[in-house]
Amino acid sequence: MKSITKISSFKEGASIQGFYLCVEKHLRHTRAGDLYLDVILRDNSGTVHAKVWDKVDEMNDKFFSGEPVAVKGNVETFQDRHQLVIKKINKASVQHYGRYGYDPALIVPVSPYDPQKMWKKLVSIIGKMKDAHLKKVVSTIYRENKDQLLIHPASVSMHHNYRSGFLEHVLSMAKIADTLAPFYKLNKDLVMAGVLLHDIGKLKEISSELEADYTDDGNFIGHIVIGRDMVNDVIKKIKGFPKDLQKKLDHIILSHQGRYEWQSPKQPAFEEALLVHLIDNLDAKMNLMKLAIEEDHSDGHWTDRKNIFRTALYKGADGPK
Amino acid sequence: MKSITKISSFKEGASIQGFYLCVEKHLRHTRAGDLYLDVILRDNSGTVHAKVWDKVDEMNDKFFSGEPVAVKGNVETFQDRHQLVIKKINKASVQHYGRYGYDPALIVPVSPYDPQKMWKKLVSIIGKMKDAHLKKVVSTIYRENKDQLLIHPASVSMHHNYRSGFLEHVLSMAKIADTLAPFYKLNKDLVMAGVLLHDIGKLKEISSELEADYTDDGNFIGHIVIGRDMVNDVIKKIKGFPKDLQKKLDHIILSHQGRYEWQSPKQPAFEEALLVHLIDNLDAKMNLMKLAIEEDHSDGHWTDRKNIFRTALYKGADGPK
Amino acid sequence: MKSITKISSFKEGASIQGFYLCVEKHLRHTRAGDLYLDVILRDNSGTVHAKVWDKVDEMNDKFFSGEPVAVKGNVETFQDRHQLVIKKINKASVQHYGRYGYDPALIVPVSPYDPQKMWKKLVSIIGKMKDAHLKKVVSTIYRENKDQLLIHPASVSMHHNYRSGFLEHVLSMAKIADTLAPFYKLNKDLVMAGVLLHDIGKLKEISSELEADYTDDGNFIGHIVIGRDMVNDVIKKIKGFPKDLQKKLDHIILSHQGRYEWQSPKQPAFEEALLVHLIDNLDAKMNLMKLAIEEDHSDGHWTDRKNIFRTALYKGADGPK
Amino acid sequence: MKSITKISSFKEGASIQGFYLCVEKHLRHTRAGDLYLDVILRDNSGTVHAKVWDKVDEMNDKFFSGEPVAVKGNVETFQDRHQLVIKKINKASVQHYGRYGYDPALIVPVSPYDPQKMWKKLVSIIGKMKDAHLKKVVSTIYRENKDQLLIHPASVSMHHNYRSGFLEHVLSMAKIADTLAPFYKLNKDLVMAGVLLHDIGKLKEISSELEADYTDDGNFIGHIVIGRDMVNDVIKKIKGFPKDLQKKLDHIILSHQGRYEWQSPKQPAFEEALLVHLIDNLDAKMNLMKLAIEEDHSDGHWTDRKNIFRTALYKGADGPK
Amino acid sequence: MKSITKISSFKEGASIQGFYLCVEKHLRHTRAGDLYLDVILRDNSGTVHAKVWDKVDEMNDKFFSGEPVAVKGNVETFQDRHQLVIKKINKASVQHYGRYGYDPALIVPVSPYDPQKMWKKLVSIIGKMKDAHLKKVVSTIYRENKDQLLIHPASVSMHHNYRSGFLEHVLSMAKIADTLAPFYKLNKDLVMAGVLLHDIGKLKEISSELEADYTDDGNFIGHIVIGRDMVNDVIKKIKGFPKDLQKKLDHIILSHQGRYEWQSPKQPAFEEALLVHLIDNLDAKMNLMKLAIEEDHSDGHWTDRKNIFRTALYKGADGPK
Amino acid sequence: MKSITKISSFKEGASIQGFYLCVEKHLRHTRAGDLYLDVILRDNSGTVHAKVWDKVDEMNDKFFSGEPVAVKGNVETFQDRHQLVIKKINKASVQHYGRYGYDPALIVPVSPYDPQKMWKKLVSIIGKMKDAHLKKVVSTIYRENKDQLLIHPASVSMHHNYRSGFLEHVLSMAKIADTLAPFYKLNKDLVMAGVLLHDIGKLKEISSELEADYTDDGNFIGHIVIGRDMVNDVIKKIKGFPKDLQKKLDHIILSHQGRYEWQSPKQPAFEEALLVHLIDNLDAKMNLMKLAIEEDHSDGHWTDRKNIFRTALYKGADGPK
Repeated sequence: MKSITKISSFKEGASIQGFYLCVEKHLRHTRAGDLYLDVILRDNSGTVHAKVWDKVDEMNDKFFSGEPVAVKGNVETFQDRHQLVIKKINKASVQHYGRYGYDPALIVPVSPYDPQKMWKKLVSIIGKMKDAHLKKVVSTIYRENKDQLLIHPASVSMHHNYRSGFLEHVLSMAKIADTLAPFYKLNKDLVMAGVLLHDIGKLKEISSELEADYTDDGNFIGHIVIGRDMVNDVIKKIKGFPKDLQKKLDHIILSHQGRYEWQSPKQPAFEEALLVHLIDNLDAKMNLMKLAIEEDHSDGHWTDRKNIFRTALYKGADGPK
Repeated sequence: MKSITKISSFKEGASIQGFYLCVEKHLRHTRAGDLYLDVILRDNSGTVHAKVWDKVDEMNDKFFSGEPVAVKGNVETFQDRHQLVIKKINKASVQHYGRYGYDPALIVPVSPYDPQKMWKKLVSIIGKMKDAHLKKVVSTIYRENKDQLLIHPASVSMHHNYRSGFLEHVLSMAKIADTLAPFYKLNKDLVMAGVLLHDIGKLKEISSELEADYTDDGNFIGHIVIGRDMVNDVIKKIKGFPKDLQKKLDHIILSHQGRYEWQSPKQPAFEEALLVHLIDNLDAKMNLMKLAIEEDHSDGHWTDRKNIFRTALYKGADGPK
Repeated sequence: MKSITKISSFKEGASIQGFYLCVEKHLRHTRAGDLYLDVILRDNSGTVHAKVWDKVDEMNDKFFSGEPVAVKGNVETFQDRHQLVIKKINKASVQHYGRYGYDPALIVPVSPYDPQKMWKKLVSIIGKMKDAHLKKVVSTIYRENKDQLLIHPASVSMHHNYRSGFLEHVLSMAKIADTLAPFYKLNKDLVMAGVLLHDIGKLKEISSELEADYTDDGNFIGHIVIGRDMVNDVIKKIKGFPKDLQKKLDHIILSHQGRYEWQSPKQPAFEEALLVHLIDNLDAKMNLMKLAIEEDHSDGHWTDRKNIFRTALYKGADGPK
Repeated sequence: MKSITKISSFKEGASIQGFYLCVEKHLRHTRAGDLYLDVILRDNSGTVHAKVWDKVDEMNDKFFSGEPVAVKGNVETFQDRHQLVIKKINKASVQHYGRYGYDPALIVPVSPYDPQKMWKKLVSIIGKMKDAHLKKVVSTIYRENKDQLLIHPASVSMHHNYRSGFLEHVLSMAKIADTLAPFYKLNKDLVMAGVLLHDIGKLKEISSELEADYTDDGNFIGHIVIGRDMVNDVIKKIKGFPKDLQKKLDHIILSHQGRYEWQSPKQPAFEEALLVHLIDNLDAKMNLMKLAIEEDHSDGHWTDRKNIFRTALYKGADGPK
Repeated sequence: MKSITKISSFKEGASIQGFYLCVEKHLRHTRAGDLYLDVILRDNSGTVHAKVWDKVDEMNDKFFSGEPVAVKGNVETFQDRHQLVIKKINKASVQHYGRYGYDPALIVPVSPYDPQKMWKKLVSIIGKMKDAHLKKVVSTIYRENKDQLLIHPASVSMHHNYRSGFLEHVLSMAKIADTLAPFYKLNKDLVMAGVLLHDIGKLKEISSELEADYTDDGNFIGHIVIGRDMVNDVIKKIKGFPKDLQKKLDHIILSHQGRYEWQSPKQPAFEEALLVHLIDNLDAKMNLMKLAIEEDHSDGHWTDRKNIFRTALYKGADGPK
Repeated sequence: MKSITKISSFKEGASIQGFYLCVEKHLRHTRAGDLYLDVILRDNSGTVHAKVWDKVDEMNDKFFSGEPVAVKGNVETFQDRHQLVIKKINKASVQHYGRYGYDPALIVPVSPYDPQKMWKKLVSIIGKMKDAHLKKVVSTIYRENKDQLLIHPASVSMHHNYRSGFLEHVLSMAKIADTLAPFYKLNKDLVMAGVLLHDIGKLKEISSELEADYTDDGNFIGHIVIGRDMVNDVIKKIKGFPKDLQKKLDHIILSHQGRYEWQSPKQPAFEEALLVHLIDNLDAKMNLMKLAIEEDHSDGHWTDRKNIFRTALYKGADGPK
C-alpha cells in the first residue's frame, strides 16, 4: 500500500490515501439536480472539505459521520482551499485496517508523550509508595483501569484534552509532587495518592471515543463524586484501612478543584489537600498556555485575545516554539 | 419543687430556680483578691450574666461551660441589667432532673411546631407515595433515623437553626411539593423523595448537641455527599431499584443547593431537580426573614441592615407579629 | 378552501396553502440577472425559506416583512432543506381571512392553555378576595385591560415569551399563592394583589404585536415603575384606600424582581413581598427549563450548554416529554 | 451669659457651658449602690463622656437621649480622656434657647458653605433656564420645599451627609453642568433640570432631624421613585408640558445612580442622562475622599484602609489641609 | 483628475475614482476556473466589496491587504448590495498621490476636530501653567512628540479610537480640569499635568498605523508603566524637581484607570489623582455613548443592546443627531 | 545576668527579666488619682499586659511605644491573665544590650530558617545561572541589598509576614523553579531571575522596622513598579543586555501577581511569566495555610472560619503539628 498522507501534507494535484475521521457528512443536490456527498474529514494534522461525485448512493452506505474512514482521492483547490475528491471510501477499524497502518492515534489529537512509557513511570512511582493502604488502593484502581487509562483525555475541552492526556497530566503532577511534598514536610504518600486519584472519576465522566463527550453519569453525578465512589468501593475491600486516612483521601478528591464555583463541594482544609489542588492548577494552566499559543492562527508575534487567558500571548519573535 | 422561671421573666429581687445552658464560665479574682465564678446562662427566652460568690471551689467542680445546669439564685440589677447571684448549681440531665421538669427544649431555641405531630404528618405523606422503590428508600431512612430526626436542626446558623428545625423545614417543603409537583405535571414521588432526602446528610454533618456544630465528617465531606452515600447505601439493599431513578435521585441531592458557589457540585438538570431546589430556597428564605424580624432589637418600625438580607425589614406599625 | 398546512408538516412535492409570518423579504438578482424575492416564513410550528420567481414586481407590492401572509405554493428541497416556491401571496388579516381560518395564534408561539379559560379562573380568584380595597384595584385594572391581557406575552425573550404568556404566568403564580400565603400565615389578599399586579407594567413596556419588542415607555421607564403608576392611578380614585396598604402594594411591585441587579429599585422588606418575589422566580425558572428542553435541537439525551442555565439539561432517555 | 464652649475646646479644670446633642443616656449604679447618669454628648466639633452625680432623679427627667441639651459643668480627666461632670442640664430648643445662642447647626455636622448663599446661587441658576416648561417644574418644586432644602443632608451616611449637604451637592453639580452641558453640545436646560431634581426624593426618603434616618416612604419606595412622583405631580399641573421631555426627565431621575446594583431601575440611555449620572458620581466621590481624609485619626501621612475607598489615602506631609 | 467619490456616495451604474483602505484581498477561482481578486475596501464613510476580473495577476502585484489604494472602477449591485468592479488599482502614498488629493484622513475614521487647532489650544493651556517644574516636564514631552500626538488615537477599540482621538480626549479633559481643579480647591497645575500626561504611554503602546494595534512594548509593559517611564526620563533631566511632586505625578499616572481590574496598579490616593481619574472616566464614557449611537444600524428610535453599555440607547424621535 | 524569660514561659509569682517590644504605652490615673503606666509588651512567643506603679514619671521618659525594651519585673495574675509589674525598664538596642543577649529576632516573629544559611543557598543558586546578563543583574541587586534582604519580611500582613520571610519565600520558589523550569522545557535562567527579582520592590515598599508598614513609595508607587525600576536601573549599566530579554524580565515582574484585581498591570503572556506567577501563588498559599493553622486558638480539631481561606481547617486529631 502507498504511504499514508496527512491532511497537512496535501498538495494540489496529488492523489492520496490515508485514514481520517469523518466529522460531517451531508447528502446534497447540485444546482443541476444531481446528488453528491459533502464531507468534512479530520486527522491529527488538520481538517479538509471533501466531495463524492460518483456512485453516491453506494458510497453513502459505507460510512457514517463520526466514524474513522479509509480514503483514496485527489486533491484539488476550491476558493483558495484544498478540497479532496473522494474516489474510494470505507469505514476503518483496527481489525480490518490495522495491518495497513490504521491507528486511532492518527486521527485524533494525541499527547506528545508515549502512553506506554508514561504508564511505566507511573507504575514505578506507585511502587515506591510506603503506606501499604494507600499503595493498595492506588495500585488496584490503576491495574483495573489500565486499558482506559492509556488513552483517556484529561478533559473534554480544557487542558490535556487529547488522547492519553489523562496520563500525561497525572504524570506531570506526580513528578512535581515528588519534589514538593517532602519540601513542605507533608505526608508524601497521601499527596501522591491524591494526585493519582483526584481525577479518576473522569474515566466514567467522559466517553473516550474518538470525539470526547460527557456520559450520563458525568452529567448526573460528575467526576468528583464518581471518583470518590470508585476509591471508596476499593477501600471497602481493604482490611484495616484507617478511617482518618479514608476521610482525608475523600476530602482531597472532593476539594481538588479548589473553589466552590469550579464545582468542588469542599475547599482544601489541610496542607496535603491544598498542595494537590495547587499542583493540579499549575500543571493545567501551563498546558493551557502551551495549547493556546500552538493553536493561534493570527499573524504577528502575539496571539489574539480569544483564548482562555483573555489576553494576547507572546508567540516569540520567531513564532511559536 | 417551685415552678421554673424563664430568664425573660426574671424580676429584680426575686429568688428563682430553673434550667439553663451555661454558655461561658470563668474563674476570676475580685480586686480584693477573692475568687468568684463569672457565668453566662441562656435558655430559649434569653441570656443573663450570673455570679457565684460563695463556696466557689466546690461549685466550680459541679459543671462545665457548655452543659445544661439546674440553678437556684437571686435576681439583682447591675449596670441597668439583671444579674443572677447563684446559690446552688448542678449539672442537669434528663436522667436526674427530668422528673423536676428538665427538658433540653427549655434551654435551646426550638421549632414552634410539635415534633411528634410533624413526624406523624411526614409518615402519612410517605405512606401516600406510589412508587414502591422510592417509598422504600425514604421510609427505611426515616425509620432508621427517627430519634435524631425528631430533634435535629436544619442548619448550624442559617435557616431553621433550632431544635426540630429539620423536621419543620422538610414538612413545609413536602406540603408545597404536594401542590406544585402535579401542578407542573412532574413525577410527584420523585419530587417528594428529593424533598425528604435532600438534606438527610445533615444528620451526620451537624452534631445535634445543645450547641450545633460541624462534625469531622461534616467538615471533610459535607452534607451533600454524605446524604447521597446514605441514600445509596439503602438503595443497594433494595432489589430491582431502577438505575435511571437512582441517578436522578443522586442528581437531586447533589444539585439541591442550586448553585456551584453554594457548594452544589451539580446544577439542577431536569424539572424535578429544579423544583426541589426552588422549594428549598423558597422555604429557607421565608424562614430567614421571619427570624431576622423576630431577632431584631433596634427601635422603630424597621430592623437594622445587619441581617442576612442586608436591607431594613419592616416589623410593622405595631412591631413584629 | 383546502386545509391549512403547518410548516412542520411540509413534504417535498406537496402543494400547500396556509398562513405564515413573513420575517424577512429581500428583492435579489439571480446570476442571470433576473429579479426574485427571497423570503423567510414562520408559523408556530417552524420556519421555511421561500422564493417568488414569477410576477416578482406584482407580488412584491402585496406584503411587507413583519406582516402575516396568506400563501399558496409548492414544497421543493434545496440543499437538504425544504424550500417553498410561492405561487400566490397576500397580506393576511382577521378581517379578510378570518373566515378562511386565519388566526394570529397560528403564526406566533402561543401558550398551551386557552386564554379564555385562564381569564375565567383569574376572575374567579379575584372574586374570592375579601379585602374590599385590594379587590377593587385589581378588578378595575383587569377589567380595563382585558383585551390586552388575553394575548400579552410575559416577556420579550425570557420566560413565557409567547402569546397569552402573561396570563399563564400570573395564573400559575396565583394558584401557588393560594396555597402558600395561608401556609406562611400571611395576608393572603395582599399576596394575591401583588401576584396579579406585579408585572402589570408589561402591558405598556412590551408591544404585543406579532413580534414582541420594547416600547418607548418600556425603554425610558420600565415595567416596574410603569406598573406602580397604573396601580396608583386607580388607587387614587378609590375612597379610603389605607395609606399603609398602598405603600405595601407599591413596595411589592417595586421589589418583585428581588435583586437590585435585576433592576428592582427595592429588595423585599416584608414577608408578603418576599413571597411574591419567590413565587415569581419559581414559576419563571420552571417555565424557562421547560422551554430550554423543548427548544434544544442537539442529538442525544442531553441539551447543549447554550441555554440560560449554562449546563446540559436532561431530555430523558426517550427525548423530551 | 458666658460664651459657649465647643467640645474640642474643653480643657481640664475648666467650667463650661454650651449646647450639645445627647446621643446616649443611661441610669446606672455605682459600686457603692448610688444612682448616677452616664451620658454621651456631641457637637459639631467632637464627642465627650459626661456624668451626673447629684440630683440624679430630677436631672434624669429633664431630657431624653436624642435631644439637644443646654449644659453647665466642669471638665475633668478620666483614663486619659476628658469627662464632663454636669452641674445643670435642660432640653434645648430654638424657642427657649435661641436668644442664648442655640442653633441646631452647632450640634450636628454642617456644610462648610452658608445655606442662604447657596440658595441664592441656585435661584439665579434656575432664573437663567430658557426652556419654560423645565424652568417651571424646577422653580415650583424648589419654592415649595425651600425650608427643607436649606437644611437637608444629601445622604444618611455617605457623601455630603451633613446639614445643608443636599444644597452643597446640587450646587456643585449645577456649576459643573453649566460648563459641561454646552461643552458636549447637549440640551443644557434638560441637564440642569436633571441635576436640580435627580435627588429631590431624598426630601421624603430621609428625615432631616438631628440624626438623619430613613422614613417609612424611604424604606418602602426609595428616593428615586419618590422623586419622580414629586416631579410628575408638578408636571401634571403645567399645561402643554411636552410628553417627550417628561419621559426624558423621568428617565434621568430613574437612571441617575447609573447602575442597577446601585438601585437604579434604569441605566442612562441618552447623553443628558449619562452626564447627570457622571457629574453626580464625580462630585460624590470628591466629597467622600475629602471626608475620609478629614475623619481619619491614624498616625502618619496616610489614612488607614478602613475608608470607603479601601486604600490608604495621602493626608500630606503636613497632615490634612 | 475627477473628484474623489466616498463609498457612502456610490450609486449603481456610476464610474468612480477615489482612495480607500484595502482591508482584505483574496485570489480566488470562479466556478469556471478563472482567477479573480476578491477585495474589501473601506474609507471613513463606509465599506464596499470589490472585484478584479481582468489582468488579475498584474493587478494582484500592485497592492497588499492593509495598504491604502488609489482605485478607478464601476459600481454595480450584487445581492442587494453595491459591488465595485475595479478597472485600475495602485498602492497610494502621500508622496505619489498627495497632489491628487490623497490624505490618510480620508480612509480612516478621524476626530471631528482639526488637530492643528487642538494643538494650539493645548499649547496655550500649557503656557498658562505656573509651576515651573510641571510646566517643564509637560512642555518637553509634548514638544518632543508633536508629530505623533497630532494623529494618535486614544485607544485601539474603545473611546476616541480614531485619528487624532488622543488630542481630542486630552483637550476635553483639560477644559474640564480647568474648571474643576479650582472648584475643588486643588493644585491645578498638578491636575493639569496629570491630565496631559496620564495616557502619554499610549504613544508607544499603540502603533498609529492605518489600523491601530498593540506594539510589543504595549503588550509586554502597557501604557501606564510606559507613560511613567517617559515622564520620569524627562524629570531626571530637570534640576531640582521636587521629590514629593514627582511621586504624586507618578501616582496620578499609575492610578488613572481608577480600579485594579482596569489594570491600574494603584487606586487614586489623593484628591488630584481622583479628579484626573474621574474626568478621564467622564470624557471617555460621553464619547463612547456618542459613538455607540452613531454606529448603531438597527431600525427604530433605539439602538440594539450589543453596545458597550449593554442597554438600548435613545437615538431620538428623529434618529441620531 | 539571669537568663531571659519568654512571655510564653511567664509563671505567676516569678520575677523575670527579658527583652520585649512595647506595642502600647498609656499614662493613666487610678481611681485614687495616682498616675501609672499601662503597657502592652510582645515577643515572638506572645503578648502580656504590664503596669508601672512606681517612679512613673522617671520610667515614662525611658521608652516610647514601638521601641524594644529591656525589662525586669514580677508576674502576677489579674482577671485570669498574667500581668507584669515592671520594676525596671529601659530602651533596648543591639549596641547597648547585645552583649546581654538582645537580638531583634527575639521580639518579632521570625522565619523558622536561619537567614545566613538561606543566603548561602541563594548565592549558590545565582552562581549556577548560565545567562551572563541575567546572572549579572540578579547578583548585582542581591549584593547591593544584602543587609536588608537578610531580615526583610515578604509582606506586611499576608504570607511570610515575619523577619527573613522574604528570603524564605524566594528560596522556596527558587527550589521549586529549579525542578519545574526544565520540566516544562523553559528558559530556566529567565524563570530563576523572575523568581529572585519578582518581589524585589518590597525592599522599598515595606519598612522592615520592628513593625512592618508601608513606606511613602509603597503607597504612591507599589512594589511591582518599584521593583521593575530597581531592575532596569541595574540593567542600564550592563553593556549589551538584550532588549528582548529586558522586556521579558519587565513583563515577569509586572505580571507576577497574575490578576489585574491583585494589582498586576499585566497578566502573564508567556510560559516563563506564567510559571513564576504560579510558583509564587503556590508557595504563598502553602505558607498561609500553615500560618492559619498555627495561629488558630479555637478548641477542637478544626480552626474557626475567620482565616483567609474562609473555611474550617483541620488541625489534626492531635492538634497542629
